[in-house]
Amino acid sequence: MRKRLRESRFAYRYGLSTPAYRELVFDWLRELAREGLGAAAYPRSYGGGGNIARFLAIFETLGTHDQSLTVKFGVQFGLFGGSIYQLGTERHHARYLRDVGTLALPGCFAMSELGHGSNVREIETEAQYDPVAREFVIDTPKESARKEWIGNAACHGRLAVVFAQLAVGGENRGVHAFLVPIRTPAGGVWPGVRIEDAGEKGGLNGVDNGRLWFDRVRIPRENLLNRYGDVSPEGEYTSPIANPARRFFTMLGTLVAGRISIALAAQSALKTGLTIAVRYGAVRRQFGPSEGREVPILDYLTHQRRLLPAVATAYAFDFALKGLVSRFVAAAESGHEGESEYRRVEADAAGLKALATWHTIAALQAARECCGGQGFLAVNRIAQLRADTDITATFEGDNTVLLQLVAKGLLTDYRQQFHAAGARGMLRYLGSRASARLARVNPLVARRTDEEHLRDPEFQLGAFRYREDRLLGSAARRLKHRMEAGTDGFSALIECQDHLLALARAHVERRMLEEFIRATESAEPALRPVLNRLRELFALSVLEREEGWLLEHGVFEGSKGEAVRALVNRACGELRPHAVSLVDAFGIPDEIVGAPIAVAASR
Amino acid sequence: MRKRLRESRFAYRYGLSTPAYRELVFDWLRELAREGLGAAAYPRSYGGGGNIARFLAIFETLGTHDQSLTVKFGVQFGLFGGSIYQLGTERHHARYLRDVGTLALPGCFAMSELGHGSNVREIETEAQYDPVAREFVIDTPKESARKEWIGNAACHGRLAVVFAQLAVGGENRGVHAFLVPIRTPAGGVWPGVRIEDAGEKGGLNGVDNGRLWFDRVRIPRENLLNRYGDVSPEGEYTSPIANPARRFFTMLGTLVAGRISIALAAQSALKTGLTIAVRYGAVRRQFGPSEGREVPILDYLTHQRRLLPAVATAYAFDFALKGLVSRFVAAAESGHEGESEYRRVEADAAGLKALATWHTIAALQAARECCGGQGFLAVNRIAQLRADTDITATFEGDNTVLLQLVAKGLLTDYRQQFHAAGARGMLRYLGSRASARLARVNPLVARRTDEEHLRDPEFQLGAFRYREDRLLGSAARRLKHRMEAGTDGFSALIECQDHLLALARAHVERRMLEEFIRATESAEPALRPVLNRLRELFALSVLEREEGWLLEHGVFEGSKGEAVRALVNRACGELRPHAVSLVDAFGIPDEIVGAPIAVAASR
Repeated sequence: MRKRLRESRFAYRYGLSTPAYRELVFDWLRELAREGLGAAAYPRSYGGGGNIARFLAIFETLGTHDQSLTVKFGVQFGLFGGSIYQLGTERHHARYLRDVGTLALPGCFAMSELGHGSNVREIETEAQYDPVAREFVIDTPKESARKEWIGNAACHGRLAVVFAQLAVGGENRGVHAFLVPIRTPAGGVWPGVRIEDAGEKGGLNGVDNGRLWFDRVRIPRENLLNRYGDVSPEGEYTSPIANPARRFFTMLGTLVAGRISIALAAQSALKTGLTIAVRYGAVRRQFGPSEGREVPILDYLTHQRRLLPAVATAYAFDFALKGLVSRFVAAAESGHEGESEYRRVEADAAGLKALATWHTIAALQAARECCGGQGFLAVNRIAQLRADTDITATFEGDNTVLLQLVAKGLLTDYRQQFHAAGARGMLRYLGSRASARLARVNPLVARRTDEEHLRDPEFQLGAFRYREDRLLGSAARRLKHRMEAGTDGFSALIECQDHLLALARAHVERRMLEEFIRATESAEPALRPVLNRLRELFALSVLEREEGWLLEHGVFEGSKGEAVRALVNRACGELRPHAVSLVDAFGIPDEIVGAPIAVAASR
Repeated sequence: MRKRLRESRFAYRYGLSTPAYRELVFDWLRELAREGLGAAAYPRSYGGGGNIARFLAIFETLGTHDQSLTVKFGVQFGLFGGSIYQLGTERHHARYLRDVGTLALPGCFAMSELGHGSNVREIETEAQYDPVAREFVIDTPKESARKEWIGNAACHGRLAVVFAQLAVGGENRGVHAFLVPIRTPAGGVWPGVRIEDAGEKGGLNGVDNGRLWFDRVRIPRENLLNRYGDVSPEGEYTSPIANPARRFFTMLGTLVAGRISIALAAQSALKTGLTIAVRYGAVRRQFGPSEGREVPILDYLTHQRRLLPAVATAYAFDFALKGLVSRFVAAAESGHEGESEYRRVEADAAGLKALATWHTIAALQAARECCGGQGFLAVNRIAQLRADTDITATFEGDNTVLLQLVAKGLLTDYRQQFHAAGARGMLRYLGSRASARLARVNPLVARRTDEEHLRDPEFQLGAFRYREDRLLGSAARRLKHRMEAGTDGFSALIECQDHLLALARAHVERRMLEEFIRATESAEPALRPVLNRLRELFALSVLEREEGWLLEHGVFEGSKGEAVRALVNRACGELRPHAVSLVDAFGIPDEIVGAPIAVAASR
């Protein structure tokens, strides 16, 4: 992928009109499809590569390049093709997957509606079964039911996977997915379908988003993607999953690859941005001692503080996401969707997607500012990377909603542990957090401010774990008290929302630190010292951010917060000489980095 | 201004090519010039309005509309015309101001260079006086000296105020400003000048930024803007300010209106964005109790926490900036530039510009996310407002550099107070901070967590003041220790940079809180209750952010941090019913708000 994207056919072009940019991206997409990259995850029997890990690696690498191309690739091969593969059965695979993979059949993934983005369960598009004609009738009953934000819809899509409420014999069976044509092979709009261009956006203008309305469009019965729910010719509904709620979440769960992909691509965009800002910071000089040469701006503490913790955190996300990808691939290949490890992967994907995309947006903003006016020029790419990744905070699941899912999952596990094993379960649970308890009960530890202690991964992980456990326990108590006092569950959750978000964040960050430690231990010995410095900076900058909470809860006492702050400064200074190597190690070729300030300046 | 900007001639257009957008903005600018708005601050004798307060109000109101128009207006009438007015003398005013004000003479402000943005003193463009021809020779000696980011340069500018190192008789006299033609009246490039288009940017694409090179361009002696330094025909240099450093800072100081304007316009952009996000949040419903209607997303605590403290902070910036504008206008009209009150205005402008622009960027990002995909559509404006205001963090002074200026000013005052009056001075200084001292010495106050106390402006201001004073004292001590230990001043400052930034932030926020209290006291009685709630939310959200520091330094003890957090939640809930009124009170007409999600939905 890196070799390919370096070629001149993938060279960036700036200042294109939106129609020209869309065509450029579609041309790029054709190039990738022609080389079989889009079909990497589909079965070999349908022209695919049968390798989902490879598909994710392709997608991740695309993320260092143009984000419109990345998203368009994801829409066509991941969302559109992926949902046919995951939600459909043999008849759909045989008929469509080959053409999807070669881009002979460009398509859409039509889930979101104007009225319902996050709350998919309440979408209003209707799919009514007509047993006489043996067809489904797809209909947009009101304006809020129009399909919104549909990638590939404005220009290129011919077929759409449309999510709609299935009605059979007058009974609603919940959300199901249907294959609905939206354009004829000649490119005309399909009868009964209305398409509108979504128009200019704050970024990703190389993707042709659009809106769709269906006016009683008839499709054959076979166009229901029927893996998790089917309708017989006579109009009898069957499903391998009896519980409708579980069925719905299982269907959505097949889309977990999308969230992992978004997180990977966002972090790739960030790596490109950090490569540019760090290289520029190392050569750009401004101000200096009254007699003497101006100094590189990366020598300033404020500059280091804006970029180096972001670099360390990018490494942390990299390790966490790579770990998640391995687990996801193992779970997907063993066909264990729906089982407990797969559900844990789903929750981790939700949490990492939320934090990784927010980190990307914030760190690209810092990177832009660190490059001053140069960072604002399109050719230097950071401003566009930031504009393009902005939407990742809300698409494929709004981050705030995703973090609440994570927190709710933790609370459910917590409750189950209590209910299952009573006091013994709780003791075992707390016992597994020995270091955290130590920090709580031992004021000597809470007061230690020496470097050896603060740099110790045991101390750091203990503090992370304690924070998570304590937030979990107190969230459970707060919810319980409210519900005992008569508050309904929904209102109780709203009242504790900020607490739930803090809990989810603490959970994801604890997992990230564990993965960082694991990755360092399994790295080549020569790399461990610098990885340890990075891990320290990642962990300490989280502890610095959480100083208030840690002091409030006795994890820190006295001047420990001040000591952490001072050590963050020192850790930045220690990593300064490695800064350029650390971004070069992202391995992004100069042609993909693109920015003249990063390429010309650093060579 | 509001009435004008509502007219159809100022209607937004989306998806324009960059050339078309630039021409639209130039047409808009002509409309404003035709009605005398650009010349509002110039003397009446040159066709102006003689009213700088009016000019700032025009600029502030423009900020709610298109940011490219705002910046283009600022470049032409503020920077270009303003520097002729401020740095020039009668001969320049008489010859140019009328044509600048009518836009008969479009021009540029050519200060920044590729090699020097923040550090203006080290710019490299040369202006050598030739006593034989009685001309200056303007020259770009090397690539790093090219003028960079010059607004109006790529397309429309004819004359430029060029900052260059003045050399007279072989002696460097430091940075001075010169009027240099860059295009002929017919529109051709002036001989010896080279112009390059800066190309696509991350925002503000309606402004034609460009680069300038000068190849020994000769200009008459009279083209030196000679208010603070002049060269006689024979080549004798004179200046009313003997000290070259003071002269330089006095010249830069005349540009303080630019920083105030940037802060005003950025906050205006934010007000538009908040109007859109709050109105949308009040009507957009998503999720809800299992039986029952979905709830408006602004009823969610997380949503309130993202938007309402931002609204409260926007009010705080409004009061602080209005106070600053009054002081600036008074100082400017009394002709007291260079004196102590004017220098305080300069420092406050630097600090408020930095915090107001950062707040704008962060809050517009939150507003975008709060509107989900709708917030990403160009027609809903928030994404573009964010992209356009991004550069405000680094132009007219990089925010990090500006905050260091504020901190250095505070340290200088602090040192002077000590040196001047010894222990007595220090005591008087501390005496003026009685409430802060109380908080330090009285653990009962540090432990109080009752609402009445936490909502009390005396408590809030005391905590803000204590924080500022303590950061100031400790910064002074840290610097002193380092320098006594032999560290040079430059390195000592770098080592304490994060401390200086925290100090500057604490200082600006303390001033903001004071202005908020003052504004509330002088408001109509009926408005005071809601203003008090806003002030509480502003103050408490700052204290919440600084919980770590406050606990570390004993200002908070025990569960006070937790109590503040809980009260922020409560204050959000109290303001929720007023949220739409609070943004409607920004007074931005629907046609200027523009966004269909905010206009159609809320009416």
